[in-house]
Amino acid sequence: MLNSIRESPLYRIANPRSVVFFGASNNISAMGTNLLMSLQSAGFEGPIYPVHPREKEVLGLKTHERVLDLPEVPDLAVIVLPTGIVNKTVEECGRKGIRRAVVVSGGFREVGPEGAALEEDLKGIAKRHGIRLLGPNCLGVANPHHHLNTTFIPHEGPGGFIGLASQSGSFVTQLFDYLSRLGLGFSTAFSVGNEADMDLVDCMEYLSACPHTRVIALYIEGIRRGRAFMEAARKITPRKPMVALYVGGSDTGKRAGFSHTGAMAGPDELYSGVFRQSGVIRARSVTELFDFCWVLGGLPRPEGPGVIIQTHSGGPGAAAADSCGRAGLKLPPLSEDTVEALREFVPHTGSLNNPVDLTFSKNPDDFYSNIPRILIREKNAHVLLVYFLTPSQVVKRALGQMGLPHDQVEEQALKYADHQCESIKDLLRTENKPIVGYTFRSLEEPAIKGLIDRGIPVFSGPERAARAIAAIVEYAGCVHRVLNLQR
Amino acid sequence: MLNSIRESPLYRIANPRSVVFFGASNNISAMGTNLLMSLQSAGFEGPIYPVHPREKEVLGLKTHERVLDLPEVPDLAVIVLPTGIVNKTVEECGRKGIRRAVVVSGGFREVGPEGAALEEDLKGIAKRHGIRLLGPNCLGVANPHHHLNTTFIPHEGPGGFIGLASQSGSFVTQLFDYLSRLGLGFSTAFSVGNEADMDLVDCMEYLSACPHTRVIALYIEGIRRGRAFMEAARKITPRKPMVALYVGGSDTGKRAGFSHTGAMAGPDELYSGVFRQSGVIRARSVTELFDFCWVLGGLPRPEGPGVIIQTHSGGPGAAAADSCGRAGLKLPPLSEDTVEALREFVPHTGSLNNPVDLTFSKNPDDFYSNIPRILIREKNAHVLLVYFLTPSQVVKRALGQMGLPHDQVEEQALKYADHQCESIKDLLRTENKPIVGYTFRSLEEPAIKGLIDRGIPVFSGPERAARAIAAIVEYAGCVHRVLNLQR
Repeated sequence: MLNSIRESPLYRIANPRSVVFFGASNNISAMGTNLLMSLQSAGFEGPIYPVHPREKEVLGLKTHERVLDLPEVPDLAVIVLPTGIVNKTVEECGRKGIRRAVVVSGGFREVGPEGAALEEDLKGIAKRHGIRLLGPNCLGVANPHHHLNTTFIPHEGPGGFIGLASQSGSFVTQLFDYLSRLGLGFSTAFSVGNEADMDLVDCMEYLSACPHTRVIALYIEGIRRGRAFMEAARKITPRKPMVALYVGGSDTGKRAGFSHTGAMAGPDELYSGVFRQSGVIRARSVTELFDFCWVLGGLPRPEGPGVIIQTHSGGPGAAAADSCGRAGLKLPPLSEDTVEALREFVPHTGSLNNPVDLTFSKNPDDFYSNIPRILIREKNAHVLLVYFLTPSQVVKRALGQMGLPHDQVEEQALKYADHQCESIKDLLRTENKPIVGYTFRSLEEPAIKGLIDRGIPVFSGPERAARAIAAIVEYAGCVHRVLNLQR
Repeated sequence: MLNSIRESPLYRIANPRSVVFFGASNNISAMGTNLLMSLQSAGFEGPIYPVHPREKEVLGLKTHERVLDLPEVPDLAVIVLPTGIVNKTVEECGRKGIRRAVVVSGGFREVGPEGAALEEDLKGIAKRHGIRLLGPNCLGVANPHHHLNTTFIPHEGPGGFIGLASQSGSFVTQLFDYLSRLGLGFSTAFSVGNEADMDLVDCMEYLSACPHTRVIALYIEGIRRGRAFMEAARKITPRKPMVALYVGGSDTGKRAGFSHTGAMAGPDELYSGVFRQSGVIRARSVTELFDFCWVLGGLPRPEGPGVIIQTHSGGPGAAAADSCGRAGLKLPPLSEDTVEALREFVPHTGSLNNPVDLTFSKNPDDFYSNIPRILIREKNAHVLLVYFLTPSQVVKRALGQMGLPHDQVEEQALKYADHQCESIKDLLRTENKPIVGYTFRSLEEPAIKGLIDRGIPVFSGPERAARAIAAIVEYAGCVHRVLNLQR
């Protein structure tokens, strides 16, 4: 384990003070140009030196003809050149004294024996010069906390708490917007490509030491260093949760992964065993990968698998109960104290079982404050799962009918949503038990977005919510198991 | 089977020419008031008669003190009154000559023996007067094609092709917005509540005869008439696909469903058998229920389980391949003709296997026209699954760099998206093979929304896409099986 993040060979890749960039031009359909544009639009604060044999200026930046001409030794080289001139360029970087590189270019081991030979050459050159590199055939790194983004798509949304190490560059760059819509973001995300030098395990160690990272996500097509992976994961997981998506386990996934980065996949059950023994939570889809990160990084740990469901509709309640059961969670009955306390808030058509079903509630405030405050204190339960439905058009309709002038309806409806969301946030803060929501409304709806912005995960549908709760319950259990294994 | 939709006892419930409404007032926090507001905002074209003992006018409509005072015999009574006066009101409706009713009020069988006795009385009264009713404890019906909505939430979006019969009213009313975001809508949706008179099977028969309905969705907590269900479904499914979500199968789901509408659930496997034998596709979540409806109602039937995946990124390709494998689909290799035709469009870093991985493509138009046109004609495959990623900010960045004036960038980017979506739509129309998309971008992005609006289902994540394709493949197989059973 690292004593400090600065000991990681990835430190100056994720936190360079200066970057030399190969392969950008003024041709906007070139890959390299797009990557440099992303770097610029991330607001990178250090100098960027494009190297170009002919252009005097690229995207407004002064170029140099050769890396050897640069006025300083940059911390990091980003290489987006045609395959044939990559190795020569790395050689020149080495002679300049550069010690960290991201090789974006493809055409290496993933295309067959000829490419594999090129990759061996690349490794030899790097080793001779003491260069540590990410790639080839990768997209490098996005570290929003350092205003760094070497990938294809401009970074959207603020930095967050998810550290990602990925054998797919797409999952680094193409999910910025996806995460941002969930109020999430990467702390640092690495695309490892062919892992000629540094691999998933190096990234895990970096992210384990990274203070911005609260949960580590892995996208895996095949693990190269099995023993090192398990050793690292066992040390990390008791302190920081890890979630892995492994796509090489089915025949179809294995073939696709092999032609993608040349990684050899193993049987599904083998990977399940590896994950289980090292405390890594396994996700079965990309959606789950980030759903699990959401709850694991954002919520307190539950003390058991008991869930209380709060709903004002029987159907969504029954669907959530079914989902919880299928995900291995428990729905404990309410204790007498809870039933007694709830009585004044629940009409005779409602249900004081679990799910707690309010049916129609005359005072919507109860749903956001009085009732969840009672439920979260239920001693038999460890997680509160709430069905959220406050369609803004219903709120606006009510405000309009109450005689509020037309031009104030919008603003008042937003204030009302804010007030409700704030109540739930207060509960999460003071009670220190996980609260999770589900809905069928758009996550952009003010009363939902307000919750998400305040750190309450709200899932589209009860199934995703139940699976995410099961993940956080499993993690709490894993921590005990891994700690026991180590004793 | 009905010869015409007009023979269904539900016809004048879903298509009333006039409505008498009990339980609305000028108190906007009352349930009945909200339901009447929904009916008004749906633009219902016939007369609406609110009955109220004291108010002279309700929501701008003239009231009558008693139903007997009405100037005509309305086609439908909607009753949202306190439990205790429901039966008396139905009795009066009967005396007036009204023959169809929706009883929204709860407090009947679902609350215990006393409520069950009340429900028996209600049935007796209805029978004596020849009244056919939906409910009690339901939300009635939404038929956007008739501008009818008796439910809590105003209808959003246009009418669509999904016919729903639901033991939960929430799933009728709370999913308007959900469906609308997928470019979908209900043809007619029934909330059956306690099914004191008409039940799921009656709704299935109505929807089977309904010309707007292309697929029937069922939300089930427990089927009361098992044999009738199977007989009806076997007749319907060869002509119209049916999808069912059954939540009573897990212990937790069963308990929740029982306290909701008093329906008795049976073992999961029993229901799976019932569905399989009658050609009904089983969904495992609310999300799947409507995902499956989307493809079943919107796409041509595939002739087999072979899928070609088109991507420009290895990771999303591998994840989709893995998802397809897990969903039981096949990824056939490309035939030589296809590989030959593709060669000019795929760079050397790409892959001509399945998934077809273009990596970086210099001409994005190829991705939307030339390449899918080749792939959809592949004789080994039956479905085309495409990864869509055209972030509008990348398009705008490119247009800006090309020197387009700032104020034209937005418009040009939209035009460009439209053009791409139109290409895919043309393929779907001319080739008559299913095309399905997946993405991690927001479905609101112009290049995604443009596809959805043109009838191409695009799913958030490859797992949902693969499961939906498996459903449509299963349906094509079911049709053969059910037809064989009948021979």
